[in-house]
Amino acid sequence: MTPHEYARMEADGALERLLEFLRIPSVSAVADHAADVRRAAEWVAARARRAGFPEVRVDDTPGHPVVFARWQVAPDAPTVLVYGHYDVQPADPLELWRTPPFEPVVRDGAIVARGASDDKGQLLAHIEAVAAYHEVAGAPPVNVVLVVEGEEEVGSPSLAAWLRRHRRSLSADAALISDTAMAGPGRPSLVVGLRGLAYMEITVRGPNRDLHSGQFGGAVRNPASALCAILASLHDAEGRVAVPGFYDRVRALSAAERAEMARLQGDDHAFLEAAGAAADWGEAGYSRVERLGARPTLDVNGLWSGWTGEGAKTVLPARASAKVSMRLVPDQDPDEIGRLFSAFVRRLAPSGVDVDVSALHGARPAVADRDTPAMRAAAAALHQAFGTAPVFTREGGSIPVVALLETELGLGSVLMGFGLPDDNLHAPNEKFDVDNYQRGIQASIAFLEAFARGGRSG
Amino acid sequence: MTPHEYARMEADGALERLLEFLRIPSVSAVADHAADVRRAAEWVAARARRAGFPEVRVDDTPGHPVVFARWQVAPDAPTVLVYGHYDVQPADPLELWRTPPFEPVVRDGAIVARGASDDKGQLLAHIEAVAAYHEVAGAPPVNVVLVVEGEEEVGSPSLAAWLRRHRRSLSADAALISDTAMAGPGRPSLVVGLRGLAYMEITVRGPNRDLHSGQFGGAVRNPASALCAILASLHDAEGRVAVPGFYDRVRALSAAERAEMARLQGDDHAFLEAAGAAADWGEAGYSRVERLGARPTLDVNGLWSGWTGEGAKTVLPARASAKVSMRLVPDQDPDEIGRLFSAFVRRLAPSGVDVDVSALHGARPAVADRDTPAMRAAAAALHQAFGTAPVFTREGGSIPVVALLETELGLGSVLMGFGLPDDNLHAPNEKFDVDNYQRGIQASIAFLEAFARGGRSG
Repeated sequence: MTPHEYARMEADGALERLLEFLRIPSVSAVADHAADVRRAAEWVAARARRAGFPEVRVDDTPGHPVVFARWQVAPDAPTVLVYGHYDVQPADPLELWRTPPFEPVVRDGAIVARGASDDKGQLLAHIEAVAAYHEVAGAPPVNVVLVVEGEEEVGSPSLAAWLRRHRRSLSADAALISDTAMAGPGRPSLVVGLRGLAYMEITVRGPNRDLHSGQFGGAVRNPASALCAILASLHDAEGRVAVPGFYDRVRALSAAERAEMARLQGDDHAFLEAAGAAADWGEAGYSRVERLGARPTLDVNGLWSGWTGEGAKTVLPARASAKVSMRLVPDQDPDEIGRLFSAFVRRLAPSGVDVDVSALHGARPAVADRDTPAMRAAAAALHQAFGTAPVFTREGGSIPVVALLETELGLGSVLMGFGLPDDNLHAPNEKFDVDNYQRGIQASIAFLEAFARGGRSG
Repeated sequence: MTPHEYARMEADGALERLLEFLRIPSVSAVADHAADVRRAAEWVAARARRAGFPEVRVDDTPGHPVVFARWQVAPDAPTVLVYGHYDVQPADPLELWRTPPFEPVVRDGAIVARGASDDKGQLLAHIEAVAAYHEVAGAPPVNVVLVVEGEEEVGSPSLAAWLRRHRRSLSADAALISDTAMAGPGRPSLVVGLRGLAYMEITVRGPNRDLHSGQFGGAVRNPASALCAILASLHDAEGRVAVPGFYDRVRALSAAERAEMARLQGDDHAFLEAAGAAADWGEAGYSRVERLGARPTLDVNGLWSGWTGEGAKTVLPARASAKVSMRLVPDQDPDEIGRLFSAFVRRLAPSGVDVDVSALHGARPAVADRDTPAMRAAAAALHQAFGTAPVFTREGGSIPVVALLETELGLGSVLMGFGLPDDNLHAPNEKFDVDNYQRGIQASIAFLEAFARGGRSG
């Protein structure tokens, strides 16, 4: 029996294990869930042990733990470092979930639960692949290092220090990460560009307490209005980000890159349907695929001020706040962009209010080399598992760990995602296609096989 | 012993009774408090009975109850209708209260509790005055009708129908209302102008669910940004409300009115200190007193969208909402202003989002005749109780009942307030000056006396 056959036979078991993993509400952003987050780390460690990894640890950090596992099969075999994260986004707003976020169900061929696609299902596919080798062949055909963190959804504050401390045991030829989406159903892809992130919070302070709008309204500046005026000035009428200097370091797209992206454009109607939105919008002069993958963007992520309950409370709020994030592309730098943003917002602040701007988290943008042994192994593995050659894409989201692995370990990453564009990441009713989960296990098995043949870099 | 002397002797008792009244969290806006609201109604009814009113009822309505009490002392005596409300604003944000909002304390000479000034303390002063007559003279010198509602803070939705149904037993010569502020400490005032209100809610809907801002940001319109652009367009650069037609029915101020308001302007620094604000702001070409009392204004009262919890959630929100209210002056009509507002906001809506606008509540503006028996009685009473003649002012807030009493019963209102401008109405740490409470009781006793002498109108 081959590992492929074993994994197909074990498909139901692999699904059961994923459902069990998804029942742990490992929300890293919310302090009340700290015990659940640790439970998820222990779950991953236990699963890695059963998959045969001889060396498994749960390492404490100043934040949530990192799970480390290693299987050294031969000193001269290539080594792949598989990265994933066991933490998940908050599940709010709960009332929009059709079934509870941490009671996974299979509906319409998909596993529905918070974390199903981002990233528990995609991560577990790799551990299941190693388990299949363990059962059938005794060991995988290459050295495997597993690094699974619990702070990806809060900006990985503890990971860099952990990577530095354990650099020697993390030596590898390539990193393999499954935390992205395919181009569409049946359309596997390898992500070669990832946007960075600068996530900011703005607080506008006016009066030192909430005032009666009848007694004070019209005589002092309203911080909610001031905040709105600031936020409304962050884009120009053509959808461009208005922060001065924002585009200065953005690399121009070559004619070849634009031609490749034009082929990925796909159906506008289908995209808007997946987004549940009524009309296209964005930076003038660029296609949707370019705007999402290769151009920087700015979004208001949250807004709050004053009375937000039922009915009519006539308050002039003391303060108003917003969360605003910018997706960055090479060669923008999150720190520099944060400074440009803060300076611009402070300059927009009208008289009578104070404006604070703080950076909540940042990540550098990344672009991968397509011609490496790991990238070739991944392309072959996806072709084998999905029956069609993958396309190369740029992803709109940020995976800060890609830049971290490059900086701290000198490792290039292969982004072999099994998600779909409509998986509802960070939104209610997150899902992960059951078929993509099983094909993901097959693709991971095929990757280890192909990487063993041609994987040694340098 | 005169009623004045009795009330001075009973000062501690009157304070104790107010503290007891303030312990009932009668928040009319929040459904969970419905039982507390009813308890407050029953408390008022019991207090009115002990004050001697021979006729006392708690009338059910489709919303919260109305307390009615009547004391007919003589068919040919003048009749005053005293209006008040026993409901209070929500106490949020709780964390900004120095002591719990429904555990009243006396601090720095003031009673600190939600509802202390608005309106439990001011209302109770009148019942205490009647009680003093009851104890000393057996009965008040004029007929007194007491109407105390429990829905003032939510726009009095049940009051008009109740007034119509009971019109015959509400026959009176004037209404007396204490639900306003004096010009300052030791500066009693009679409010002769009240602004109206049009309170609106805007909801901007974009995608049908929250989206991942990395996967969709920059390709679909962000509803939070769209809302901010709309709200930022509601004022022009000179602080004027930009809704077309908004000022069409506003009465121009006469030179005499402007001169009178100039005398009330007071100390800008002291006003900003009371507001806790850094700088003056408002409609160009008008003084602060004019802007607050005689000009219409627009304020954002609340804002909410997307992720408002700790940390960085990279969400593109499905919707964004705001509460916006406009203070109106004669002869603006809240329904017409609501229509103009809705039309303008819908016209501002950009492509790719849907915008809903709804009216939460409205009140007509009012201006009172200064030369009536009740107004003269009130002026004399304030002079006696505070040792100085009252000034005539316009109030920025709305007391919709003034327009209702005029429309439904043909009654003019005297607004004899005992609050202070820094009483923190609708805000944390609401307070009511103990001395103003006791002088309010004296003023109410003096009013009944003066009204008996010259109160019969028509």
